[in-house]
Amino acid sequence: MTKPWILLLHCPDRKGLVAAIAQFLFERGGNILHAAQHQDNDLNLFFMRVEFALDDASERASLREQFGALAQRYGMEWELSNQEQLPKVAIFVSQYLHCLNDLLFRHHAGELQCEISLLISNHEDARPLADFYKIPFHHVPVTKETKLQAEERQTTLLRENGVELVVLARYMQVLSPGFCAAYPRRIINVHHSFLPAFTGAKPYHAAFARGVKLIGSSSHYVTEVLDEGPIIEQDVMRISHDDQLGDLIQKGRDLERLVLSRAVRWHLERRILSYANKTVIFN
Amino acid sequence: MTKPWILLLHCPDRKGLVAAIAQFLFERGGNILHAAQHQDNDLNLFFMRVEFALDDASERASLREQFGALAQRYGMEWELSNQEQLPKVAIFVSQYLHCLNDLLFRHHAGELQCEISLLISNHEDARPLADFYKIPFHHVPVTKETKLQAEERQTTLLRENGVELVVLARYMQVLSPGFCAAYPRRIINVHHSFLPAFTGAKPYHAAFARGVKLIGSSSHYVTEVLDEGPIIEQDVMRISHDDQLGDLIQKGRDLERLVLSRAVRWHLERRILSYANKTVIFN
Amino acid sequence: MTKPWILLLHCPDRKGLVAAIAQFLFERGGNILHAAQHQDNDLNLFFMRVEFALDDASERASLREQFGALAQRYGMEWELSNQEQLPKVAIFVSQYLHCLNDLLFRHHAGELQCEISLLISNHEDARPLADFYKIPFHHVPVTKETKLQAEERQTTLLRENGVELVVLARYMQVLSPGFCAAYPRRIINVHHSFLPAFTGAKPYHAAFARGVKLIGSSSHYVTEVLDEGPIIEQDVMRISHDDQLGDLIQKGRDLERLVLSRAVRWHLERRILSYANKTVIFN
Amino acid sequence: MTKPWILLLHCPDRKGLVAAIAQFLFERGGNILHAAQHQDNDLNLFFMRVEFALDDASERASLREQFGALAQRYGMEWELSNQEQLPKVAIFVSQYLHCLNDLLFRHHAGELQCEISLLISNHEDARPLADFYKIPFHHVPVTKETKLQAEERQTTLLRENGVELVVLARYMQVLSPGFCAAYPRRIINVHHSFLPAFTGAKPYHAAFARGVKLIGSSSHYVTEVLDEGPIIEQDVMRISHDDQLGDLIQKGRDLERLVLSRAVRWHLERRILSYANKTVIFN
Repeated sequence: MTKPWILLLHCPDRKGLVAAIAQFLFERGGNILHAAQHQDNDLNLFFMRVEFALDDASERASLREQFGALAQRYGMEWELSNQEQLPKVAIFVSQYLHCLNDLLFRHHAGELQCEISLLISNHEDARPLADFYKIPFHHVPVTKETKLQAEERQTTLLRENGVELVVLARYMQVLSPGFCAAYPRRIINVHHSFLPAFTGAKPYHAAFARGVKLIGSSSHYVTEVLDEGPIIEQDVMRISHDDQLGDLIQKGRDLERLVLSRAVRWHLERRILSYANKTVIFN
Repeated sequence: MTKPWILLLHCPDRKGLVAAIAQFLFERGGNILHAAQHQDNDLNLFFMRVEFALDDASERASLREQFGALAQRYGMEWELSNQEQLPKVAIFVSQYLHCLNDLLFRHHAGELQCEISLLISNHEDARPLADFYKIPFHHVPVTKETKLQAEERQTTLLRENGVELVVLARYMQVLSPGFCAAYPRRIINVHHSFLPAFTGAKPYHAAFARGVKLIGSSSHYVTEVLDEGPIIEQDVMRISHDDQLGDLIQKGRDLERLVLSRAVRWHLERRILSYANKTVIFN
Repeated sequence: MTKPWILLLHCPDRKGLVAAIAQFLFERGGNILHAAQHQDNDLNLFFMRVEFALDDASERASLREQFGALAQRYGMEWELSNQEQLPKVAIFVSQYLHCLNDLLFRHHAGELQCEISLLISNHEDARPLADFYKIPFHHVPVTKETKLQAEERQTTLLRENGVELVVLARYMQVLSPGFCAAYPRRIINVHHSFLPAFTGAKPYHAAFARGVKLIGSSSHYVTEVLDEGPIIEQDVMRISHDDQLGDLIQKGRDLERLVLSRAVRWHLERRILSYANKTVIFN
Repeated sequence: MTKPWILLLHCPDRKGLVAAIAQFLFERGGNILHAAQHQDNDLNLFFMRVEFALDDASERASLREQFGALAQRYGMEWELSNQEQLPKVAIFVSQYLHCLNDLLFRHHAGELQCEISLLISNHEDARPLADFYKIPFHHVPVTKETKLQAEERQTTLLRENGVELVVLARYMQVLSPGFCAAYPRRIINVHHSFLPAFTGAKPYHAAFARGVKLIGSSSHYVTEVLDEGPIIEQDVMRISHDDQLGDLIQKGRDLERLVLSRAVRWHLERRILSYANKTVIFN
């Protein structure tokens, strides 16, 4: 048995799209294991994710080329992956290690289908965890003056390792617009998100002062506009007046772990289609 | 513009199903507005819901017959509905009116696409609400001795009104197996559901005594085995030691309203496929 | 048996406060049924809610005066209520009736310990519901030109009816700063609250465009700064890309009902202490 | 500044309890930092948790003795702890390491105020994690035949290490009634809890077959009746028909981590009073 393929696409909506795609797969002996569609009626866009088995070796060999022809006919943006080669991931981290520890444990437990190729940090704190899980660790210090060189070193490391996805696991440096643009929909970040939103330097302090009853966390793709990229996942926990500032921060950490790990898993499972600054998450 | 059609089907899984259905619709000028599939790999079953527009009058006229031929080929169980005729609903209620009030208000506000044809109650308490919303009200008293006659009267009323769906909005009488069997997947009930489950006569008392930290509510299709039918929706709320018995009951009422109304809406929107005592809920 | 009293107070924190209050009650034969304290360490403030029984008639008669003396010694702001006289409530509403319908049903079912003295609306839509529940209904139209006269008419009605609490149940007019200032911590409003927050004219449209994964609702006391008053309660529901704008609005309505009714109930049960633009909610 | 004290007590309810306790502390120069009471009206019981500062050395020295006299007068069961000496904890684990990893990381990050004195496991899988965090690891294999000897070895280890709290972090052996009785309210376990509850050997399989829409997890004190001890915390996550058995198990793991770690933290912070097979959790 070969591993299943995942086809992810979007294009202008029109009659016959599902039929064309399903027919294409059927003719080649493909067996649809899971399929989901979505339409955005305002923008007249069609989205689809198909997971399918295709065992015939010659069909497998020519699949991309042949689907490319179909895709061109319908103006599709598409991505066809099979899970035989694990995607390569880099994790960026600073001194808060809760998200990193969570991701490494999940990876070790088989929850994340990827290879974690390297860790990059502007501090040394994460090195013991990296060593424990036998992940190569690169200390890349960043100062205002050396930021650009540091990013050059980082991108070199990403390129050399064939990294597809960058996960910012509480990496406390702002990436330059150039860096972000080089990895479109390939950098996932996590941050707090409160009701109402607080955007200043100390959001937990602001939320505490305001007496909010819920605290939240969001994960999103990084775009050139800081923390304004397409939201992938959000979650909240209740708090009360009994919760002190430290309790808010502690609950926030629990949320960040959950919300970031879901986003990473969904990305790796090719469940996310992103367009117009929002996401479709195929279950 | 005609109203969209909804096709709901399940059958043994095999290659080419999506292609066959999509092709069928495309050939007749159908435009898929929304489609979702599901596979149960253990049982080798395929499920699909398709919402599509089909404006050509002659195609509309022959649609059922033609799809019937396709369905037979693949061994499908299917249901094809268009929303031009609103489904007819009967609500059964006793003396707790919170679910009834909720359903009637939602219907009035346009949230439930149906005609509420009649109310049946073993008490008189609901009559003023029925009158306010101008829904015919039928008082059908039930005693141990008259239960069968009462059910005969009820089924006559349902038949005369062409009722498709029966909603038990806190109806405190147990329906006979015969009644349940006459409306398979056509009766929706709501009840509490605790962690751990309490099945005795006074579940809130038992949950309070046990010191649970969550209370829950479930809606389900009624089968001949009491409260063991396919679950449609569940939800919970947190409680603490500060919550007294009355608080549990009050929160339970809030849950019942939410959980029952979601089940009814999803049924009316043909989002539910039920098999093997479980449900698929197409979003 | 007489009804219990509720004492709600806050003052600068210092040693001996609990002892002084508990001793005061014990000496008069008071029996504490429920007590809760809270300290704000940053502001050095002490908060307390005590529910107690006091059956002796002469103690009851002199209670306020005597506690006043104690309160002065400690610089307390305090409120002592017994539940023998139900607080009087006015509901303001416009054309969306879901919160109103919910509040009236809960009141009818005994969940809200108050007298709903009157309904005030700038539209006629709510009149039938008011009539059904036999609540006096006052139509007070509001235009830009007549806003001040309308508010005069409203405050006259509130005064004549001895109204203690104003509930804005989706009342779509902005109250003047003067009106708000006249009812400090006596007006409760409900509004959406999203992650991230959207403050424009069409928040649901903005949230939909942004692709949020949660929608929320907040209830709060109205202050002179629009929707910036102390938050009383918040809640959220999950949404997905499948949810259309209408689904967001429908789920928002469900949240508004829950969140507003909780705030009103807690206010009536004297569970809320508000200070420094935040609230303490005693369970 | 000395560390604060925590007083946890329960006794038959009567007038003057709060006054007596508050007066006792005030007279000795104690400063109440946080206090919370609870009454169980059905059982006529009073519960209280007081966190207070007491800096005077001679008062500190005689505090237990003096409070003991007061406690006797009112028939109190009580516990007085100050946080100067960290409580000692043992973690039992088998082969699933997600809860263990979570607890060790939280401890390392300062979230759990205790000393983790040792790890006991019937397998070797946890040894590397124990080594990483420098926690003594004891491999105590258990077979049907050696169960009693194994428990003797375990209790010896607990005794030698002065362990106060045993945390079963997915320890897959059933403890004997004798073991459980030796540590009343001193053993915390975590297990799944579904709606409706499934009690068989493969609960996730049963829940999947039943098509539940929520999965849950509970933590509780272990009593001699398996998994029927006082519930400390519960939480749930939504699932859908798209979730496969593996997804349920993965979400269950996330819940177990959250629910177990909260229970352990609350126990360490002396927030839990347990009586009549339920718990009071003071926030």
